[in-house]
Amino acid sequence: MTKQREAYDRDPDATDLVIRPDRLWQRHMDFARFGGTEDGGVCRLALTEPDLAAHRHLADIALGLGLRVQLDPVGNMYLRLEGREPDLAPVMVGSHCDSQPTGGRFDGIYGVLAGLEAIETMVEGGFVPRRPVECVIWNNEEGSRFAPGCLGSSVFAGLTPLETALAVADEEGCLLGEAVQDLFAAIPEAERRALGTPVAAFLEAHIEQGPVLEAEGRRIGVVTGVQGYRRTEVTMVGRADHSGTTPRSRRQDAFLAAMNLCCRMEQALHDDEDLLRFTVGRFAVHPNAWSVVPGKVVFGIDIRHPDTATLEHSDAVIAGLIRDRADGCAVTSRTIASSDPVTFPPLVPDLIEVAAAQRGYSARRIFSGAGHDARNMSFHCPSGMIFVPCRGGISHNSMEYAEPEDLAAGAQVLADVVWQLAEAR
Amino acid sequence: MTKQREAYDRDPDATDLVIRPDRLWQRHMDFARFGGTEDGGVCRLALTEPDLAAHRHLADIALGLGLRVQLDPVGNMYLRLEGREPDLAPVMVGSHCDSQPTGGRFDGIYGVLAGLEAIETMVEGGFVPRRPVECVIWNNEEGSRFAPGCLGSSVFAGLTPLETALAVADEEGCLLGEAVQDLFAAIPEAERRALGTPVAAFLEAHIEQGPVLEAEGRRIGVVTGVQGYRRTEVTMVGRADHSGTTPRSRRQDAFLAAMNLCCRMEQALHDDEDLLRFTVGRFAVHPNAWSVVPGKVVFGIDIRHPDTATLEHSDAVIAGLIRDRADGCAVTSRTIASSDPVTFPPLVPDLIEVAAAQRGYSARRIFSGAGHDARNMSFHCPSGMIFVPCRGGISHNSMEYAEPEDLAAGAQVLADVVWQLAEAR
Repeated sequence: MTKQREAYDRDPDATDLVIRPDRLWQRHMDFARFGGTEDGGVCRLALTEPDLAAHRHLADIALGLGLRVQLDPVGNMYLRLEGREPDLAPVMVGSHCDSQPTGGRFDGIYGVLAGLEAIETMVEGGFVPRRPVECVIWNNEEGSRFAPGCLGSSVFAGLTPLETALAVADEEGCLLGEAVQDLFAAIPEAERRALGTPVAAFLEAHIEQGPVLEAEGRRIGVVTGVQGYRRTEVTMVGRADHSGTTPRSRRQDAFLAAMNLCCRMEQALHDDEDLLRFTVGRFAVHPNAWSVVPGKVVFGIDIRHPDTATLEHSDAVIAGLIRDRADGCAVTSRTIASSDPVTFPPLVPDLIEVAAAQRGYSARRIFSGAGHDARNMSFHCPSGMIFVPCRGGISHNSMEYAEPEDLAAGAQVLADVVWQLAEAR
Repeated sequence: MTKQREAYDRDPDATDLVIRPDRLWQRHMDFARFGGTEDGGVCRLALTEPDLAAHRHLADIALGLGLRVQLDPVGNMYLRLEGREPDLAPVMVGSHCDSQPTGGRFDGIYGVLAGLEAIETMVEGGFVPRRPVECVIWNNEEGSRFAPGCLGSSVFAGLTPLETALAVADEEGCLLGEAVQDLFAAIPEAERRALGTPVAAFLEAHIEQGPVLEAEGRRIGVVTGVQGYRRTEVTMVGRADHSGTTPRSRRQDAFLAAMNLCCRMEQALHDDEDLLRFTVGRFAVHPNAWSVVPGKVVFGIDIRHPDTATLEHSDAVIAGLIRDRADGCAVTSRTIASSDPVTFPPLVPDLIEVAAAQRGYSARRIFSGAGHDARNMSFHCPSGMIFVPCRGGISHNSMEYAEPEDLAAGAQVLADVVWQLAEAR
């Protein structure tokens, strides 16, 4: 109560809210031990032991700061700093602490630790915000254990029914609903809370996972939206034949047909402005033997762009090529996943841009190439993201690295914007 | 002795030597049960239980016919019909009874059963040849359990040292030398015999495993040689990047680089006469994930041609393209396997052609696209092969099928030629 009373007497000026870069960096190193791998990376799949341990450690820090710890039915965890007017919708910050199997030390956990740093700075400095501030750890963002990703935020924002999410099984047949019980058991003192509660605004700090900020020497990316994507699985069926005995003229070579199709797709989707991302990341040849002409190829096309019309046009181009260029093979395709681009409303991006300028950080507006929980939250409340550079743009890789000064700059801007939003009338 | 004396009194005219098509077909159906699969195919890896059982059954038939059963140190089995002049080098016929994991009912075993049918017909008809006639079951032709294939005939012909072959391990770490002991144990009454003994001539009957004979309506392929091959493994290393965040201009996409390289190889190796066989049968993308630009691709090129000079030219073309078209990736290549073409000396092919004509079978000369034990034996003695059509050219597949009449025609020509060779002065 002393601190709260003291805070009432202060002028809540965000310039006094200075985060501690050393603590922020040390926390990253501490959390890298949960699921740490020999090559310096992290394997912390959603709700596995290392992920539960990371949640437990976050809850311990929060309880030590006097925050409330809450869990919702889909396994999202909230660390809540009560506001002067606790009935107001909170400002929410956060990200996720699960990782890819070959993850790094910054993807996801940075947004959580930056949010926690902002709150801890407020607590230490006696800043009591008007609105509550919540640091959220969204469940199962990566989708490596339970597909698809961003499930926790999707359920919170009402985009996926709770029952659907809880019924998703991992490769061992364990349901998300069962794994969430493990989380409840790991943090028995957590309060239960509801999904879809009102939120004043949502902010997510994240490493860029791309090369642009580093290449341009910027500290802060003011994220204006998240590009959309289409994932299409193409199956080409020819005929498996003996590679030594079957003349070219009698072959139905699914590999050559798929290769020619991919070549034509790449040419047809070439854009001079280099905004369209065309990737064939999955490609499987059957039976994959030296002496057998491939009878079947299954490959996956991932296309991303900030603009829905371009995505739809690309879909049509691909469908046309599939129709025309099967080279004697039977070809089928199906959409595996699809997500339209989202542009954040200007409120949060504008505040981020101003805060970065006030702190003297070089910033630029940037569209997110990767998907994030903030995309889901943008359907629920004003949302935005802060990017910081990562070395070489490398992510989902044990080599992932971000400079301590860049992490600190992003956390500082986050703290400044959260404070403004939490104080705003 | 009665039969032998009777035979001495006969005019050994091959036209009297008429094989029994019904027995030959029934034997194929009987042997398909050793390792038979639910889809009608055969999985009979070298010296596994089903292969040992097939050897045992062959030995039983041979012993019932009064043949000698012999095993050599590398696990080749010989069913020997003694000749009137038993010290002469024998005429040898045969093939193998092991199969691919997804094998059919005719590959290999046909050459064994056709050879046995020829011998059984001689025994039943009281034909006693001047030279001994041996039906050989070469060990480990397919190479699916112990790599490489054609090991038994290679050791017999002195192309591979015995110790090298016996030291080859399967995937479970079992050595060929250990597995051969299982064969010795399965057929305890077999005599032991030496490797590399003199052979007057070797004949192998086999399904074509290609589409030519069927398409042209021919019953008999007079095999004039076995084409050579080169297997090259190419590794392209780019950089794994996030597919959503990395602009095209910053990518080192190993998949696109490999695709472009394969396209150019296919174009550069196009021959109007359709003799060169260019196959990319193996192709693996790493890490093979939707949202990761492939950082590495490993693929395998299999090239075959009847002519050594063309193979060497193709090797040079491929090496040149690999050098020039890496598209920013690091590329390495290595030769995995190499085999020069073999042309059989005219003795055996000419006899086959004449015998087919005398029986009224439509025949054509044909080069073998696949490798066979007869290739190895051609370094040891005059050798040749008889091909019969198989449906759709399909082999190494449970759908493999050959018409009873075609199998009978091939076995009849085999019997005729063996008799002539065995009688020849």
